[in-house]
Amino acid sequence: MKTRAAVAFEPKKPLEIVEVDLEGPKAGEVLVEIMATGICHTDAYTLDGFDSEGIFPSILGHEGAGIVREVGAGVTSVKPGDHVIPLYTPECRQCKSCLSRKTNLCTHIRATQGKGLMPDGTSRFSYKGQTIFHYMGCSTFSNFTVLPEIAVAKIREDAPFDTSCYIGCGVTTGVGSVIFSAKVEPGANCVVFGLGGIGLNVIQGLRMVGADKIVGVDINPSKEEWGRRFGMTHFVNPKDVGDIVAHLVNLTGGGADYSFDCTGNTTVMRQALECCHRGWGTSIVIGVAEAGKEISTRPFQLVTGRVWKGSAFGGARGRTDVPKIVDWYMEKKIEIDPMITHRMPLEKINDAFDLMHKGQSIRSVVVY
Amino acid sequence: MKTRAAVAFEPKKPLEIVEVDLEGPKAGEVLVEIMATGICHTDAYTLDGFDSEGIFPSILGHEGAGIVREVGAGVTSVKPGDHVIPLYTPECRQCKSCLSRKTNLCTHIRATQGKGLMPDGTSRFSYKGQTIFHYMGCSTFSNFTVLPEIAVAKIREDAPFDTSCYIGCGVTTGVGSVIFSAKVEPGANCVVFGLGGIGLNVIQGLRMVGADKIVGVDINPSKEEWGRRFGMTHFVNPKDVGDIVAHLVNLTGGGADYSFDCTGNTTVMRQALECCHRGWGTSIVIGVAEAGKEISTRPFQLVTGRVWKGSAFGGARGRTDVPKIVDWYMEKKIEIDPMITHRMPLEKINDAFDLMHKGQSIRSVVVY
Repeated sequence: MKTRAAVAFEPKKPLEIVEVDLEGPKAGEVLVEIMATGICHTDAYTLDGFDSEGIFPSILGHEGAGIVREVGAGVTSVKPGDHVIPLYTPECRQCKSCLSRKTNLCTHIRATQGKGLMPDGTSRFSYKGQTIFHYMGCSTFSNFTVLPEIAVAKIREDAPFDTSCYIGCGVTTGVGSVIFSAKVEPGANCVVFGLGGIGLNVIQGLRMVGADKIVGVDINPSKEEWGRRFGMTHFVNPKDVGDIVAHLVNLTGGGADYSFDCTGNTTVMRQALECCHRGWGTSIVIGVAEAGKEISTRPFQLVTGRVWKGSAFGGARGRTDVPKIVDWYMEKKIEIDPMITHRMPLEKINDAFDLMHKGQSIRSVVVY
Repeated sequence: MKTRAAVAFEPKKPLEIVEVDLEGPKAGEVLVEIMATGICHTDAYTLDGFDSEGIFPSILGHEGAGIVREVGAGVTSVKPGDHVIPLYTPECRQCKSCLSRKTNLCTHIRATQGKGLMPDGTSRFSYKGQTIFHYMGCSTFSNFTVLPEIAVAKIREDAPFDTSCYIGCGVTTGVGSVIFSAKVEPGANCVVFGLGGIGLNVIQGLRMVGADKIVGVDINPSKEEWGRRFGMTHFVNPKDVGDIVAHLVNLTGGGADYSFDCTGNTTVMRQALECCHRGWGTSIVIGVAEAGKEISTRPFQLVTGRVWKGSAFGGARGRTDVPKIVDWYMEKKIEIDPMITHRMPLEKINDAFDLMHKGQSIRSVVVY
């Protein structure tokens, strides 16, 4: 079949909207009509050529929502008509990682996914006979895409596509890091570094679980209003205080029970660890650092009880937890609508990258 | 009263055995007759002048066992005749840390303890009218010492002093890090870096909880026999392999579920983290690093699920958990006797430091 898609033919160039060829789903695969997709910093990171493992030509996009239109042989967990969210972190429920009960990082199709291919080692996309590669196993910048069955989360049918697509990455990454990675308990005092989309979703995750102090930290004062909108109780601009770590330890009455880095800046990651409470404070690294950058601290910080850990896709299991997050959104336990600052047709997708680079959007969404 | 003690009058000088003056216990304090004390690397670290916060003149020693001989006003939890282990990590059961249920690092008397003083801000020791300071709240290199009630663990009376004193620091630090800090589950694959006294106690802690692979790592091949004696299943000498991290990941079938640094070397601490299993591997820093040294890694290690934490006093609550460890020793779940390589009277205590510096002892014990 043919489908309209935004193709990244090479890095650092605008996406091109073309009709590509798409093979139907093979065994264990599903064809999904993408109804909406968010544009995430990770897409821009790859398009801008920063990802040394980026593959071109490819169809980017990993934050979508859509409808199953066809299923391949042996597919049993979804059927045509089901509403789904594509999963760049699949959930096979069979591999050592899935069975460990300790991680969401399913490894079942990792090798081929990293190469831009389906599990059988081939691509479903082509253009004028040339292979076009998949991206993060999703390629939601295509109106239709093919995904492994284990890489779609079935969601309720009353959830709007143009907001619930954000659950495919940003919302789950932020809210999930609170609930699945940190397991924050009611009454905890928390600090969130970086009030972009991920930081705001961490904040509303903290509000949902009943955190006490929710301190937001950002060097951009205009973020204060956004943070308070989603539950932030205190705002700190590091430019306004001397020693940011000492300031936060004081503000939280001894240190944060949990802190979250949503900046990707390794200096900030250290501050996030060191503002944690002696004895138990846990810092969660969410942000992706520049290649080659390292985090450091004195080991004394750990020996005296601080814990340094990370979170990918919010620690959420794709097929098990993503539908729950959709429920939380529909039950108004979390909000998404005000975060969707721009909507556009696929033809305008390059505008979304411009808005992101200029810091003028929380989340732009392409509606097909 | 008078008591015989080994006094550290100044750094880098041998201890001097003299009769010092000891005031009796004030309210909330107990007088303990020390029956035996281990000599630990931390005592040597302070005596050798490496601890910038070391205070002199003082009576070192923090790994003792003895008998309560007198109690001050208001003391209710112990009585004369009770056998006890002094606690450099006390347990008040009242402070924010004790009540957090998340840490063993009681802060009730931390400020005065760090200054070499009892909680009322004074010392009980003096010599020819000059104040002699307490050390780590214990000063077990004195035949009699005074301790806060919250800093003694009451233990069973059939436990020999000359072995159970080791539970006052080394045994608890090692075994406890497995049980209370890492909470290792049966079947886990584990790697222990550094097979000194702490490392051996980590190994026997892992054996006790039913770990599967127990891999010991040391650059000294003579440690292999010691490791196997306490449950090590595999020995790796980093000098014999190329990439130690890759070797350990392979040996453990994907990475360690838990790793333990017992070296204090920050390069090793990094290896200990990075040999952990993607998704959940947890590395515990136990060793104390040189002043100013820092640990580093790429944040990707954390984002992909590894956890970096530390352990002090094995995560054990002094009054609650130390008596349990004495029980485990008496029930032969753990061994101590073969680790006590040397016994000596107080007059020979400087020999213990020599043996330690030469690497010729696992643990030397002074028997009063």
